[in-house]
Amino acid sequence: MGAYDLYGKDLISTQEWSREELEFAIETAKEIKRLKYTGEVPELFKNRTFFMLFYNTSTRTRSSFEAAATLLGGHAQFIEFRTTRGSEGESIADIAHMYERLGHALGIRILEDAVDYVYGAGNAVIREYAKHARIPVINMADDMYHPTQAIADMMTIDEKLHGNYEKKKYVIMWAYSDHVRSWGSVQDEMLIASKFGMDVTLAYPPGFDIDEKLVEAAKQNAAESGGSLEISHDLKSSLEGAHIVFPRSWASHACVTTGMNRFGKDKEVELHKKYMDWKLTKELVDRMDRNAIVTHVLPVFRGQEADDEVMDGPHSVILDQAENLLYVRSAILALLAGNRL
Amino acid sequence: MGAYDLYGKDLISTQEWSREELEFAIETAKEIKRLKYTGEVPELFKNRTFFMLFYNTSTRTRSSFEAAATLLGGHAQFIEFRTTRGSEGESIADIAHMYERLGHALGIRILEDAVDYVYGAGNAVIREYAKHARIPVINMADDMYHPTQAIADMMTIDEKLHGNYEKKKYVIMWAYSDHVRSWGSVQDEMLIASKFGMDVTLAYPPGFDIDEKLVEAAKQNAAESGGSLEISHDLKSSLEGAHIVFPRSWASHACVTTGMNRFGKDKEVELHKKYMDWKLTKELVDRMDRNAIVTHVLPVFRGQEADDEVMDGPHSVILDQAENLLYVRSAILALLAGNRL
Amino acid sequence: MGAYDLYGKDLISTQEWSREELEFAIETAKEIKRLKYTGEVPELFKNRTFFMLFYNTSTRTRSSFEAAATLLGGHAQFIEFRTTRGSEGESIADIAHMYERLGHALGIRILEDAVDYVYGAGNAVIREYAKHARIPVINMADDMYHPTQAIADMMTIDEKLHGNYEKKKYVIMWAYSDHVRSWGSVQDEMLIASKFGMDVTLAYPPGFDIDEKLVEAAKQNAAESGGSLEISHDLKSSLEGAHIVFPRSWASHACVTTGMNRFGKDKEVELHKKYMDWKLTKELVDRMDRNAIVTHVLPVFRGQEADDEVMDGPHSVILDQAENLLYVRSAILALLAGNRL
Repeated sequence: MGAYDLYGKDLISTQEWSREELEFAIETAKEIKRLKYTGEVPELFKNRTFFMLFYNTSTRTRSSFEAAATLLGGHAQFIEFRTTRGSEGESIADIAHMYERLGHALGIRILEDAVDYVYGAGNAVIREYAKHARIPVINMADDMYHPTQAIADMMTIDEKLHGNYEKKKYVIMWAYSDHVRSWGSVQDEMLIASKFGMDVTLAYPPGFDIDEKLVEAAKQNAAESGGSLEISHDLKSSLEGAHIVFPRSWASHACVTTGMNRFGKDKEVELHKKYMDWKLTKELVDRMDRNAIVTHVLPVFRGQEADDEVMDGPHSVILDQAENLLYVRSAILALLAGNRL
Repeated sequence: MGAYDLYGKDLISTQEWSREELEFAIETAKEIKRLKYTGEVPELFKNRTFFMLFYNTSTRTRSSFEAAATLLGGHAQFIEFRTTRGSEGESIADIAHMYERLGHALGIRILEDAVDYVYGAGNAVIREYAKHARIPVINMADDMYHPTQAIADMMTIDEKLHGNYEKKKYVIMWAYSDHVRSWGSVQDEMLIASKFGMDVTLAYPPGFDIDEKLVEAAKQNAAESGGSLEISHDLKSSLEGAHIVFPRSWASHACVTTGMNRFGKDKEVELHKKYMDWKLTKELVDRMDRNAIVTHVLPVFRGQEADDEVMDGPHSVILDQAENLLYVRSAILALLAGNRL
Repeated sequence: MGAYDLYGKDLISTQEWSREELEFAIETAKEIKRLKYTGEVPELFKNRTFFMLFYNTSTRTRSSFEAAATLLGGHAQFIEFRTTRGSEGESIADIAHMYERLGHALGIRILEDAVDYVYGAGNAVIREYAKHARIPVINMADDMYHPTQAIADMMTIDEKLHGNYEKKKYVIMWAYSDHVRSWGSVQDEMLIASKFGMDVTLAYPPGFDIDEKLVEAAKQNAAESGGSLEISHDLKSSLEGAHIVFPRSWASHACVTTGMNRFGKDKEVELHKKYMDWKLTKELVDRMDRNAIVTHVLPVFRGQEADDEVMDGPHSVILDQAENLLYVRSAILALLAGNRL
C-alpha cells in the first residue's frame, strides 16, 4: 500500500478520512505493534507533548494515549477541564491557540453529562477547538464520534479475520443496560465498517434509531465500497451467520434528541427495561458463524449487555481491542504530530 | 553577555534577581526557542523531576511547565494540593524536605480563593516552602508575584521591539471585568519593566492602587536603570504615544487589603462597574505609537478588559507571549535545576 | 549476594517475598542510589508505563513512584480512581486486563475511608486486581500492608546501622494522635524486621492490638531468622537500650474490626486521648542506645506522635527514609517490569 501524509491533519471522525488514509493508520499501528513485540519502537514523538483535555471521565482513552506518548518518547498531559481556567469562561479560541503554541496535538473528550445530552453539542465544541488550533485536534470521544476507538476496532477485525473482512457481516446490536450512553462509538463503528466494505447490520428495538444523517452517510459508504447497511429490529435473525457482533447499550432516539435533562434518566431507563432480552447470550452467539468474534469498546455492562460466558468466552476479542488502542493511538500521534526524519 | 550561575537558586519574584540574571534567563530562553525551531533542543532536564504543587487551577502555567520538562527530556508532576496528605495538616517544612529528597525543583501556585484574599498570605506560604526546601522553589503565581510570566512577557517585548525597549513607554492599565483578580502579574510586570529601563505607567481608577511597597521598589528600579515609573488616573492621556499596553483587571486596594470574604465579592464587582469604560478599544490603541503592541497574560476577559478587534488585531502579541512561556520555563528549569555537562 | 529473577512478580506484602528477594531489591536500590549520585542511572524502565491507581490521596507514594519512573526513562500515570469509568461499576477483572494490555505494571492504593475501615477490604481489592492482571501488581498501601515503604525503611535501617541490624532492638510504638490510621505500615514494618532477624517490640496501650495472624507470622519469621517478637504495654521499659523507634498512631483493635462507621470516629479519638502520654519525647529517646535512630513513614503528627526536637533532632532519619523511597521504588519497577538486556 502507499504512504499518506497525515501530518497536521485533524481526526474528528473516521468519516472525514479516506479509506486509504485509515488503512495507512492501521498499517502503521500494526508496524508499531510488531516493533513493540520485538522491542524496538522508534521514538516517533520524542520529547513532544499531546494535550488531553477531558470534560468527562475516562479509563482506556486516557491511559492508552498517555502510554502511547510514553512509548514514543514523548508525553501526554492528562488535563481535567475543571482544573483549568477555561472553567472560568476563557474562550475556546484562546484556549486552542494557547495549546497550539505549547505542544504538538490536542485531544478533547466531551460527551454525555458534559453536554447535557443535547445531541451534537459535544462535537460542536471539538470542531470549535479544531477551527482555531493550528495543531491537530483529535476527538477522544464525543456525542457523535469516537474515531480512534473505531480505527482500533477495525484493526482488530482485520487481524482476527486475517484481512478478509470485506462482505463479512458485522452486527452492531443494541443491548440492554441501566446506563444511558451516547451514540459516538456505535456511529463511528458503523461508518468505518461500511467504508471498509463490510455488510453492516444495525439491530435495535423500535425507538432506538441513531443519527439518520450518519446512517445515510454509512449507506453511501457501502455503495462506494461494495458493502451494505441494513437495519433490523429482529435480533435473532440478524445474528444468523454473522461474523462479528458488538453488543452495546445506547440511549433512545427520543432521549438523545430531546436532551437527557428534559427527557429524564428514569424514563429512559424504564424504556430500556422493556428490552431486557436484548442481551448477547451464548445461544445467540451459537447462531453466528462458527469463527465469529464478539467485540466491545468497554466498559461492558456484564449481565446486562452480555453474559460473562460470552464476554470471557472463546469468541471474545475485547482484550485485543483494548491492546490495539495503544498501537492505533501511537500511530495517530506519530502520523499527525510526530517528529519526522 | 556573560553567563550567570543560577543553579539551585529560588525564583520567587523577579525583584530578587539582578537584571543580568534575568537577561541571562531570557537569552537562554531565546536559544532554546531557536533550537526548537531547528529541531535540536538538548535534554537539559534529562530524567529529572519538577514537582508542581497547585493550590489553584491553572491552564497555561501547568501545561507550559509540563511541556517544558518534556521538551528537555524530564517530567513535571501535576500535583493538585487536594490530592496530597498535606491537606490533612502535614507541615510545610516536612512537605518541602520530602520533595527536596525526591526531585530537582518545586513549583507552587497559591493565590485568590486559596488564600482567602488576605494579601501576602500566598507569598508567605511559598517563602515557607523555600525556607525549608534545599531544591529551587519556583513561584508559579501567588498573590504578590508571577515571575516566570513576567520574564516571558519581557522576552516578548524584547523580541517585538527588536531589543530597543529601554525608555519605551509601557502602560499597565487597569481594565474592567466582573472577575476579582490578584495583583501578582501586574506587580511583577511593573518590577521587571522598571528594572529593564522602561518608562512604566500604571493607569487605574482611584481606589485601585496596588502594593505601595512594590511601587516604591519599582521607582528605585527605575532610578537605577534609567527608566521611570508614573501613576495616572487618566487612561486616554496615559496611552498617548505608548509602545506597550497590558489591559488587566485587578481587585481594588480596599478589597485586597480587607480580604475578599470580609469585603464581599458583590461589593467589589459593583465597584468595578463604575469603571466599565476602562476597556482597551481600537480607538485607544490608535492613540498609541503606530508600532505599539498589546499584551496580556491571559485569560483575557473579552468585551470587558478589551475588545476582540484589539486582542485579535495586528498589534496583539498575546499568542507569542503564551508561546514564550514554554521557552522561559524551559530555561528556568535548565538553569536552576538541570543536568550540567 | 546472588541475583534473583523478580520479573513479573507481584508485590502485595513483604511477607510473600523471601528474605533473599527483599535483600536483592534493597541491594538494587542501593546501586541505583550510588549511580544517581554519580550521575549515570541506566534507563531501566525506558518508555515504559506504570499505572498508579489511587482510591486515596497520597503525597510521597505518588511523587516518589512518578519520579522513579522518570529517573529510569519511563512514566508513571497518576490515576485518581474517581476520574475513571471504574467508578461507574466496571469490574475489577476488566480493568485489570485492560491495564495489562496497555502497560507494564499496576500500582493500587486503597485504605481508610476508601474501604470504610472494614479490615482487609482494601487488601482484598488489590488481590482481586492481582488475580486478573498478568502484569505485576504493586501494593501502594492498603489496610493491611505497605510493602515498598517497609522495604525502603529496612534499607534505611541497614544503611544507618552499617549492615549490623540483626539482633538489634526495633520498637514500633503506638503514639497518640487525633487521626485514625490503618495498620498497613506498622504491620509490614513488623513483618520485614522480624524476617531480617531483628528483635522487634510492639509497644502499645491495651486495646491497640493489631492483626493477630500477622503477629503470629512475624513470630514465625523471627523463629526462622533468629530474631524475636515481643509485645509490651510499657513504653518506657520497652525503649530501654533500643536501637530504632518508629512512633506511629494507629486505630484501636475494636475500631478496625468493628469498622469505622459503626464504631464512630469521635469514639475512637476519645479512646486515643486516654493515651496522650504515648508520645516520643527527648526523654524517651535518651533511654535508647546512644546511636539510636528515630524513623517515621510520614506524615508525622508533630506534637502528638512525637516532639519536634525528636523528629528534627540528631537521631531522626526520616528524610533519608523519604529519599530511599525513590531508590526502592525505582528498583521495584526495574526488577518487576523493566526492560532487560
